[in-house]
Amino acid sequence: MSTDTSGETKSIFERRESEARSYCRGFPTTFIKASGSHMTDAGGTEYIDFLAGCSSLNYGHNDPDMKAALIEHISNDGIAMGLDLHTGAKAQFLEAFEEHILKPRGMDHRVMFMGPTGANAVEAAMKLARKVTGRDNIVAFTNGFHGVTLGALAATGNEYHRGGAGTTLHGVTRMPYDGYMGEGTDTADLLAAMLRDKSSGLEAPAAIILETVQGEGGLNAASAEWVRRVADLAKESGALLIIDDIQAGCGRTGSFFSFEEMGVEPDIVTQAKSISGFGLPMAMMLVKPEHDIFGPAEHNGTFRGNTHAFVTARVAIEKFWADPAFQTELGEKAKVLKDGLTKVSEAIPGSRLKGRGLMRGVDVGSGELAGKICARCFEKGLIIETSGPEDEVVKVLAPLTTPVETFEKGLAIVLEAVREIVPAEQPMAAE
Amino acid sequence: MSTDTSGETKSIFERRESEARSYCRGFPTTFIKASGSHMTDAGGTEYIDFLAGCSSLNYGHNDPDMKAALIEHISNDGIAMGLDLHTGAKAQFLEAFEEHILKPRGMDHRVMFMGPTGANAVEAAMKLARKVTGRDNIVAFTNGFHGVTLGALAATGNEYHRGGAGTTLHGVTRMPYDGYMGEGTDTADLLAAMLRDKSSGLEAPAAIILETVQGEGGLNAASAEWVRRVADLAKESGALLIIDDIQAGCGRTGSFFSFEEMGVEPDIVTQAKSISGFGLPMAMMLVKPEHDIFGPAEHNGTFRGNTHAFVTARVAIEKFWADPAFQTELGEKAKVLKDGLTKVSEAIPGSRLKGRGLMRGVDVGSGELAGKICARCFEKGLIIETSGPEDEVVKVLAPLTTPVETFEKGLAIVLEAVREIVPAEQPMAAE
Amino acid sequence: MSTDTSGETKSIFERRESEARSYCRGFPTTFIKASGSHMTDAGGTEYIDFLAGCSSLNYGHNDPDMKAALIEHISNDGIAMGLDLHTGAKAQFLEAFEEHILKPRGMDHRVMFMGPTGANAVEAAMKLARKVTGRDNIVAFTNGFHGVTLGALAATGNEYHRGGAGTTLHGVTRMPYDGYMGEGTDTADLLAAMLRDKSSGLEAPAAIILETVQGEGGLNAASAEWVRRVADLAKESGALLIIDDIQAGCGRTGSFFSFEEMGVEPDIVTQAKSISGFGLPMAMMLVKPEHDIFGPAEHNGTFRGNTHAFVTARVAIEKFWADPAFQTELGEKAKVLKDGLTKVSEAIPGSRLKGRGLMRGVDVGSGELAGKICARCFEKGLIIETSGPEDEVVKVLAPLTTPVETFEKGLAIVLEAVREIVPAEQPMAAE
Amino acid sequence: MSTDTSGETKSIFERRESEARSYCRGFPTTFIKASGSHMTDAGGTEYIDFLAGCSSLNYGHNDPDMKAALIEHISNDGIAMGLDLHTGAKAQFLEAFEEHILKPRGMDHRVMFMGPTGANAVEAAMKLARKVTGRDNIVAFTNGFHGVTLGALAATGNEYHRGGAGTTLHGVTRMPYDGYMGEGTDTADLLAAMLRDKSSGLEAPAAIILETVQGEGGLNAASAEWVRRVADLAKESGALLIIDDIQAGCGRTGSFFSFEEMGVEPDIVTQAKSISGFGLPMAMMLVKPEHDIFGPAEHNGTFRGNTHAFVTARVAIEKFWADPAFQTELGEKAKVLKDGLTKVSEAIPGSRLKGRGLMRGVDVGSGELAGKICARCFEKGLIIETSGPEDEVVKVLAPLTTPVETFEKGLAIVLEAVREIVPAEQPMAAE
Repeated sequence: MSTDTSGETKSIFERRESEARSYCRGFPTTFIKASGSHMTDAGGTEYIDFLAGCSSLNYGHNDPDMKAALIEHISNDGIAMGLDLHTGAKAQFLEAFEEHILKPRGMDHRVMFMGPTGANAVEAAMKLARKVTGRDNIVAFTNGFHGVTLGALAATGNEYHRGGAGTTLHGVTRMPYDGYMGEGTDTADLLAAMLRDKSSGLEAPAAIILETVQGEGGLNAASAEWVRRVADLAKESGALLIIDDIQAGCGRTGSFFSFEEMGVEPDIVTQAKSISGFGLPMAMMLVKPEHDIFGPAEHNGTFRGNTHAFVTARVAIEKFWADPAFQTELGEKAKVLKDGLTKVSEAIPGSRLKGRGLMRGVDVGSGELAGKICARCFEKGLIIETSGPEDEVVKVLAPLTTPVETFEKGLAIVLEAVREIVPAEQPMAAE
Repeated sequence: MSTDTSGETKSIFERRESEARSYCRGFPTTFIKASGSHMTDAGGTEYIDFLAGCSSLNYGHNDPDMKAALIEHISNDGIAMGLDLHTGAKAQFLEAFEEHILKPRGMDHRVMFMGPTGANAVEAAMKLARKVTGRDNIVAFTNGFHGVTLGALAATGNEYHRGGAGTTLHGVTRMPYDGYMGEGTDTADLLAAMLRDKSSGLEAPAAIILETVQGEGGLNAASAEWVRRVADLAKESGALLIIDDIQAGCGRTGSFFSFEEMGVEPDIVTQAKSISGFGLPMAMMLVKPEHDIFGPAEHNGTFRGNTHAFVTARVAIEKFWADPAFQTELGEKAKVLKDGLTKVSEAIPGSRLKGRGLMRGVDVGSGELAGKICARCFEKGLIIETSGPEDEVVKVLAPLTTPVETFEKGLAIVLEAVREIVPAEQPMAAE
Repeated sequence: MSTDTSGETKSIFERRESEARSYCRGFPTTFIKASGSHMTDAGGTEYIDFLAGCSSLNYGHNDPDMKAALIEHISNDGIAMGLDLHTGAKAQFLEAFEEHILKPRGMDHRVMFMGPTGANAVEAAMKLARKVTGRDNIVAFTNGFHGVTLGALAATGNEYHRGGAGTTLHGVTRMPYDGYMGEGTDTADLLAAMLRDKSSGLEAPAAIILETVQGEGGLNAASAEWVRRVADLAKESGALLIIDDIQAGCGRTGSFFSFEEMGVEPDIVTQAKSISGFGLPMAMMLVKPEHDIFGPAEHNGTFRGNTHAFVTARVAIEKFWADPAFQTELGEKAKVLKDGLTKVSEAIPGSRLKGRGLMRGVDVGSGELAGKICARCFEKGLIIETSGPEDEVVKVLAPLTTPVETFEKGLAIVLEAVREIVPAEQPMAAE
Repeated sequence: MSTDTSGETKSIFERRESEARSYCRGFPTTFIKASGSHMTDAGGTEYIDFLAGCSSLNYGHNDPDMKAALIEHISNDGIAMGLDLHTGAKAQFLEAFEEHILKPRGMDHRVMFMGPTGANAVEAAMKLARKVTGRDNIVAFTNGFHGVTLGALAATGNEYHRGGAGTTLHGVTRMPYDGYMGEGTDTADLLAAMLRDKSSGLEAPAAIILETVQGEGGLNAASAEWVRRVADLAKESGALLIIDDIQAGCGRTGSFFSFEEMGVEPDIVTQAKSISGFGLPMAMMLVKPEHDIFGPAEHNGTFRGNTHAFVTARVAIEKFWADPAFQTELGEKAKVLKDGLTKVSEAIPGSRLKGRGLMRGVDVGSGELAGKICARCFEKGLIIETSGPEDEVVKVLAPLTTPVETFEKGLAIVLEAVREIVPAEQPMAAE
């Protein structure tokens, strides 16, 4: 602590951290420890974590098996950073990923590691699609979120983030996502018409990029039919299909990939967030062998070889995905979540349930109300956040390993918070 | 190991890792362990490491103090990933950085964390400069390297990396770096003329971005006078000065920042690579308070809070930079390095010494020769790489903590390799 | 005529004119003279002209009054090119335009002259809208055609023309035009949703640019309701409304401006083609005074002052628009045209009538059939062309001054051509 | 004349013409007639014209032979606008151009007509070069001026004009023009170095575009050696050489093309301004047959066939260029001009003579002084303008047909004006 001229004491964060900091504003305490679905702050208060590092802690905090493996690796002077050299830890991760993820799903994709951020995976995917096709344009969808570096940001819909660019964003055409034009209209019709019309002005795309559930965009979940149709249109028009599974993947929707049940074969899949299992920075993309045409280091980055992350990622695959029991468990928890949020939604006139699997939330109608609910939850010991264009969706991204009773406890807090707040808001204004 | 249809056995890397992998091609073995300035492969062979994760391991592999602190943190269920929440580990890092780095240098910069890659730091810096100035154009220099995501890639000079974009790159004007036009010409004259001429066609820049020593560009070192002049031109023209200290910072040139002795006050400094001390993914930028205008999460990213990295980064600052002895030691080692490479250069007709401090190399005239030298070194137990537009510079980026005798041993290997190869190449073809 | 090595004789056009030449391929003769609605070739053959310089000869060829005024001007050494100096001829044109066009319609727009092409008018309009709003993005519609210089080309939908750029085209977002998604869907709903959604990814537009009837795009005619709604959305979102009236204006749809009956007040109107009355190069835009913010010569061009064109343009305004009789006459002729084309359409199974006013055509289902019809018409003494994304619309753009009997004669030729060709095509293949 | 609310009378230009109007501000009168090198205003005052429509009236106003041919053409109902149909007038122009211009110079270029503005010719040239090479980048030079439509504007250096875009300009790299870095430095060295360096960041260019004398940029004249070197570098790097001869061509520098004596063979030559001979809108580009790859109408435009311009353009070629006498005469007049401007320059301390041939001026050190001189000249009956980044060059662009005595009379006015103004300005401030 230091003292400024006004006599007030400023914390080190106020003194030295950029104004760009954000989550810390909604959860104003200092966190020290975390385990499973709980975080503990400096004052010893324990919180249930329904944010889970924005779905980067799908297996909870400090999973004991990953923790043990990581401590062992470090203790033995295992490589920490390995550029893209061959390391034992990378080999073991790749073998586990091949054995337990790719083979059972009949996928022959190659794995490319890049700088360990989701945005970087999206950047690499967009670059590769352009290189493969010799085309520039990439079709992305309303309310999509793909990161904030310049290439990825062009594909991101959010106006606030786009405004951060300070420059124009190029190379992306925006199309309406599934459901955007209401029930009667299949938005894939418009995409089909514009792709086929020589005078539509839609440049032949290098790729179509989509999330099957739009995490930041407000938990909009596309139907399997729509995704399949978009996949077919991509193929028909010579574009690659990129599924950005950064937030929706690693079990979040109930299966390892969010698109498993949809009958599509994406050319490229981007992964990050929970892929390391432990919340360590790691990103990768899966690419069909015929499109694996980057030359050596053509897309590179210093931290492609975060070996600590390879260690925990390998454990995560082996521990959770070698056996179908985990996936079965996810189905059960998804039901608990849906039931709990249904009650929440019923307590808020005009609200509606959104999302899919364990990526669920309630559109409460306004960002103001959603913010109040989350703040009240935090007072009651629950960390939970919003999403959506107006931050109007209260979103649950709990660790997938959260015990049912903890899920229920957290959901009870949400319901309690809603009941305390919503009466005062009644009657809700129609939008 | 699996068997493909041709009967040949392919390694997991060949089977599943993308063709984009690169360093592993020059150093064809699998690394398991590393300590200090040495790496050990699966067969037990030990190598001296003169690559040091491309300067991201300035304090060597698995520094014992950082290692102990990290194991303790993990053992205690310390936060692993903290989004941009306040965490104890982040507070401690910021306090150490304020106390030992910023204050002694009279810098009032704020620290902004972003996705933990150097490219992301550059992206954030470019975005911020554009936002602050309302201008689009950014001046970068010939042979500069700033990363390969779309925004940063526009500032990167290398044609091979630029080609990976598959699209056009916008928003950057290229100017000749110090020395680019030969001894008689101060390239800052051209920059000055074009900035002042209303009809030059050079758009008023949002920023001028430069490395004081161009690591990937071939170890071109700018003079203090030139950097100062560019800094003055930035100020005169209303542009921000961004010093990209990702490779040259953290002691690499002999002081914490590469520009300390130059009498300039950059508006933004980008840092990554060795900032975590341990090779863990971490990136940040320093920004003058008056330019710290990003809104909350306007530039965001999941892994901004790689707490493991904050732990080791704090130890690195406290261990190496709290006391001036380390900097003194760097000066002595720089001399050892210079002397050793001078001998190497003398053994290669037409070659020349390049770089500054502990960021040194020898331009041997061609990428082919440089490649042969590095390959021969690897056979002799030394990991060393090239840089430059034609990969013509044999580059030493040893850990700064490398003991003098290890430096000398490594340099002896280089000299031996050169002597074995160069006679066969004689007489060297004039370019 | 010269002789090439192969012994063949090539015409001067084959020897020296670029392969970019086009209309001459469909009408393979050399034209010498023209008067009213007729053109005469070197062999003395006379053709009825239903192309009218793509609507740039709305008052026919060599109108006697314009011709006399122009000859007098030249004979008297009147200024031919006047840059943007004040000239008597320009003053007279502006006075006539103010008196007979602007004042009766209650329009207070300023007139800006630019390089005398429609594309240049569009370029100036797009630049001005961006300057006024400080925004980059411009919304244009499927099947729109606005010219082929780089700025205007970005707003043009046609893939063939876009391909001519050899580079990516920036700054335009494409939205579906009225009717593009079929009868049940109001495409303005999508525009409204995306403009209002903070996360749609549609950048706040500087302008919305549209043609009320898409001449090159296939004679798609927007409804008044749709145009009004788009105009309201432009206002609501702070965008300028640009109506590109280059092809549809100057009486082509039955009134001087194509939007007169629609209840909208465009911020900018682009004009070219028939504005000079005589087919001479001239372009201008009308801009509301509050948006008239270009500085002197900020958008300039050598031939802004084609004084010959001002002379004939003034006569055109005074002769045709000072008296409402001309507009009444247009209504009658529009009926003749509609009736004639209805017969044509009835002769072609699956075809449909398109367009509005004297900008009408028949979508015959394929470019191949449309091309055959036009070629047969030419053999029979009628010049007529196609439009649409697949060139599938046989389009009538006859001089508005064409006598009814000539209209009927031309339409009879079309019907005759269709009847000769279509039986052979039966049964028409479903698309 | 109308009366506004303040009781003042506004002219039609003030009421209705856009603020973008410019030349009329410096020459505040209304012009009615013009002949040869003289213009006459509404009040009967006659002015010597040293502006000549910015070099679009190289043969003076209303040349009697062109005038007669044009009146005859119109009287006979000759085609006025011919799209790109074959017309007799176009054939005759092409034949004359082939016979008297191309053949004698051994040029096998094709002629492409586009929308009749210089900017459009530049747009077509840039598009074609990109299409031919598959590259995006175009190298242009400091102080170049190539028009203000979006594609051409990117190549134009002037900040004021660039600012009119309201958006960022793409696809052009700016290099220093001949002489830009002072006498000791050959700027082609920098171009060569950056083209050959794989890490310079200069994208392989589609074209290098240059004016041999920069008309708007301040009458900078490139040396033959420099142009030749740039031409060689274009060839070496696979780029097309585009010479923009719009202002410097048609005899302005003393020969038909400005580059005739330089030993270069441009791939593309753009022409406009004086090509019609009479000041009528006309533009074209010459392109080597192997690069003539635009498809039919791929680059199009309504007014490509301004037939009136073809008529006068044909007369201009036949009258002035069929016989070498005209070129000889130009050499003599160039000497008169040089001598006269040398005297002007001697009267202004610190000034210097610029330009070449009949494209000459005096850099008087500041835009303010140059503006005063031109204003004083106008009072004395001479129309003369400035150019250069600060409008600091008093520029003579008299009709090439100006009789020697008129040249001398005009030059005497300039000298007189200077002598009246400069003493009051003494001593001139050093820059």
